[in-house]
Amino acid sequence: MSDTLTFIEANLGRFRGELYDFLRIPSISAKSEFDAETARSAQWLAERMAAAGLEVEVLPTEGHPVVLGEWRGAGPDAPTVLIYGHYDVQPPEPLQLWTSPPFEPTERDGRIYARGSADDKGQLYMHVKALEAHLATSGSLPVNVVVLAEGEEEIGSPNLVPFVDANVERLACDVVVISDTGMFAEGLPSLLFSLRGLAYFEIHVHGARSDLHSGEFGGALKNPGNVLSQIIASLHDDQGRIAIPGFYDDVLEWDTTTREQIAALPHSDEEFRESLELGALAGEQGFGTLERLWIRPTCDVNGLLCGYTEEGAKTVLPNHAMAKVSFRLVPQQSDARVKELLEAHLREVTPAGVTVELKELHGGRPWKASVEGPYFQAAAEALEEAFGTKPVPMGGGGSIPIVVEFEERLDAPALLVGFSLPGCNLHAPDEWLSVENFEKGIGSLAILYEKLGATGG
Amino acid sequence: MSDTLTFIEANLGRFRGELYDFLRIPSISAKSEFDAETARSAQWLAERMAAAGLEVEVLPTEGHPVVLGEWRGAGPDAPTVLIYGHYDVQPPEPLQLWTSPPFEPTERDGRIYARGSADDKGQLYMHVKALEAHLATSGSLPVNVVVLAEGEEEIGSPNLVPFVDANVERLACDVVVISDTGMFAEGLPSLLFSLRGLAYFEIHVHGARSDLHSGEFGGALKNPGNVLSQIIASLHDDQGRIAIPGFYDDVLEWDTTTREQIAALPHSDEEFRESLELGALAGEQGFGTLERLWIRPTCDVNGLLCGYTEEGAKTVLPNHAMAKVSFRLVPQQSDARVKELLEAHLREVTPAGVTVELKELHGGRPWKASVEGPYFQAAAEALEEAFGTKPVPMGGGGSIPIVVEFEERLDAPALLVGFSLPGCNLHAPDEWLSVENFEKGIGSLAILYEKLGATGG
Repeated sequence: MSDTLTFIEANLGRFRGELYDFLRIPSISAKSEFDAETARSAQWLAERMAAAGLEVEVLPTEGHPVVLGEWRGAGPDAPTVLIYGHYDVQPPEPLQLWTSPPFEPTERDGRIYARGSADDKGQLYMHVKALEAHLATSGSLPVNVVVLAEGEEEIGSPNLVPFVDANVERLACDVVVISDTGMFAEGLPSLLFSLRGLAYFEIHVHGARSDLHSGEFGGALKNPGNVLSQIIASLHDDQGRIAIPGFYDDVLEWDTTTREQIAALPHSDEEFRESLELGALAGEQGFGTLERLWIRPTCDVNGLLCGYTEEGAKTVLPNHAMAKVSFRLVPQQSDARVKELLEAHLREVTPAGVTVELKELHGGRPWKASVEGPYFQAAAEALEEAFGTKPVPMGGGGSIPIVVEFEERLDAPALLVGFSLPGCNLHAPDEWLSVENFEKGIGSLAILYEKLGATGG
Repeated sequence: MSDTLTFIEANLGRFRGELYDFLRIPSISAKSEFDAETARSAQWLAERMAAAGLEVEVLPTEGHPVVLGEWRGAGPDAPTVLIYGHYDVQPPEPLQLWTSPPFEPTERDGRIYARGSADDKGQLYMHVKALEAHLATSGSLPVNVVVLAEGEEEIGSPNLVPFVDANVERLACDVVVISDTGMFAEGLPSLLFSLRGLAYFEIHVHGARSDLHSGEFGGALKNPGNVLSQIIASLHDDQGRIAIPGFYDDVLEWDTTTREQIAALPHSDEEFRESLELGALAGEQGFGTLERLWIRPTCDVNGLLCGYTEEGAKTVLPNHAMAKVSFRLVPQQSDARVKELLEAHLREVTPAGVTVELKELHGGRPWKASVEGPYFQAAAEALEEAFGTKPVPMGGGGSIPIVVEFEERLDAPALLVGFSLPGCNLHAPDEWLSVENFEKGIGSLAILYEKLGATGG
């Protein structure tokens, strides 16, 4: 193992140069004009994975291809690890806000600036280099490995679940490792213990046959804009809790240990508040900020549209109002159940004189890590060895629905081990990855495979 | 007087032909490309008023000119009547929804279809013809007359109050007569007893420094979209009353007679509801539909805008939300006082973590007619003689702020005597005026001048 780490140390310069080549390919999955570049990105990755010593195939889907790399020489007694990542990136716009060009990786102050550096090419490539280091120094890996890299994560992974379903045997594994998240703070490695789910709706309120004059008709009928506001207001009580009957029935009450670990994290409400330029934070009473972000559900307006919204005064009594409203869900909630509860609530609060229509746009289930098992323990030890400090448990406020899908379809727990840092501008201009984390990350992952191998599958 | 009515009867065909010429001029005040046509409309009207026997001037303003016609031969003992109307019209769009071209008057089923037929060229021209009939048959008028026709009513009369202020002596009068409203129903002449005022605002709720990711940040800060909804919801109670403290302090409680007169009008809630294609009417409890529309104040959302409103699901936590909210006011309310009360209410209901900004866009005071005086009585008698049935009292749900301004600046009561009919498509495609009302209206007004003359000033 020390040979492997020595190999990594000796080759860091080359690794970084290769990563730069990877980052130079504008694999923007959302834009069809970049389809050839996205395909080239898959091909480039496949070649590097093959050079590292994996058996590689580029498998077509209805969209961008899946790159599948395998090495199964560890034998039936060793665990099989599925490594998931993605080689596509977000569009770089607005370009004028980038300090250096998004597809020309540039180092400044110990950071690699480029689209995809943190999300997710840089993190995916750490795995490739960790695998190469093992294979180069010992001719083998401590575990069997399947690397699954997709090219559609940034457009919602439309073809990934069908691909997994069609290849369940081939993807069979003992544990899934994903590096597409971050660390709680610089120097503080982190392991995700949860992700929130999502239930995203449009609420439409319909009134009279047409827009009306607010003078001629105002006062004698329900105004859809007023009713929509009342409906949205009815979704919370004055304690910041969601007021839909039954909503908290499925909300997991977390154990004391997890809540104590969250409370022990180096977090300052004051700094957080100032970073958002807010006069005050807010949220569900009885919970701290990190708890509100990670282990408690939310209900947020994402959009409102009704009537006349241009400059000046138009005295219209609108006949339609629309809100986009989404819920972040926590274990054990499901978006399907939330939809049922919301429908029942809307029936309850909708007054006579309007009709309300509910459209579900998007759903995704929450995830809770298996923090007790040997794999989680292996990851904790690996991160501690590489970073010299115990990793902290961290929740994810956003949603990565594919994590639950992997766990259920492959019957294997997921480990979310990420190396981006707060403020690294995911999906924004000047995205960056810390050089130190790129280098320590490769070492961490090499150690992680070793530790996972030691669990005996 | 019978000579005058005979003259009208004999000349109705010519009057209608002249009106058609007036209606053919596209005097669209809102569009500068039609400025020459708007000026031509003023000139045309001035010539017809001069031909009728008035002394006429076309007086410039900073916008479109005022046409002023005078006849002061009735002597100091006769009352002076200020007749107000406007020669400008709304834009005709959408053109494809007109059955016949908007500026080519066309008769169908006893209606004159053209932009401006009802609002207000047709009604203004009735006055010109009633004056002509008196002057042609007796060489004089029963009253002194000032006709003030403006060309900017459809753009909010920006230059009218300054014009009145600069010409108070010249416009001095005993009573103001305005024909720019309608009748309650066909065959049922009407006199307006009130108009509602207006207080129109934008409410802006500002949150964090920028839009945020609703997963990363949702739950730990106030969402401006949710807060705006709560603010709008707080504007009403569950009885349909406006819940701003102090709001009803200045609301006039109408006398029993007026409420009984309203209740006696031939109105069907069921037909009204069906015409709007609504499942139910709604509004402030304790009042009927016509009361809600005429003598009770309202609070309506006119527009809402926040966050992402296009197709699909964007998980944005918006940092700004905007509502356009307007109040219709009733005597004795004022928009200035409503603004103060709303500001105080917003301070009360705005939670920590957002800032709220209130912008006033538009104001106008409500109006209540002097229904007890001799002028109102004269109008009632004139309408009864011409239509063969007593006129009904009618409220106006919309706002005509200039009415109060005339009354205050000229210290004279206003009579609102209008001849358009429900469904006549003011400001909409296929605007029309009933031929019968055009003809009976001229007679009514001729009789009205006679009756006003008899009051002795």
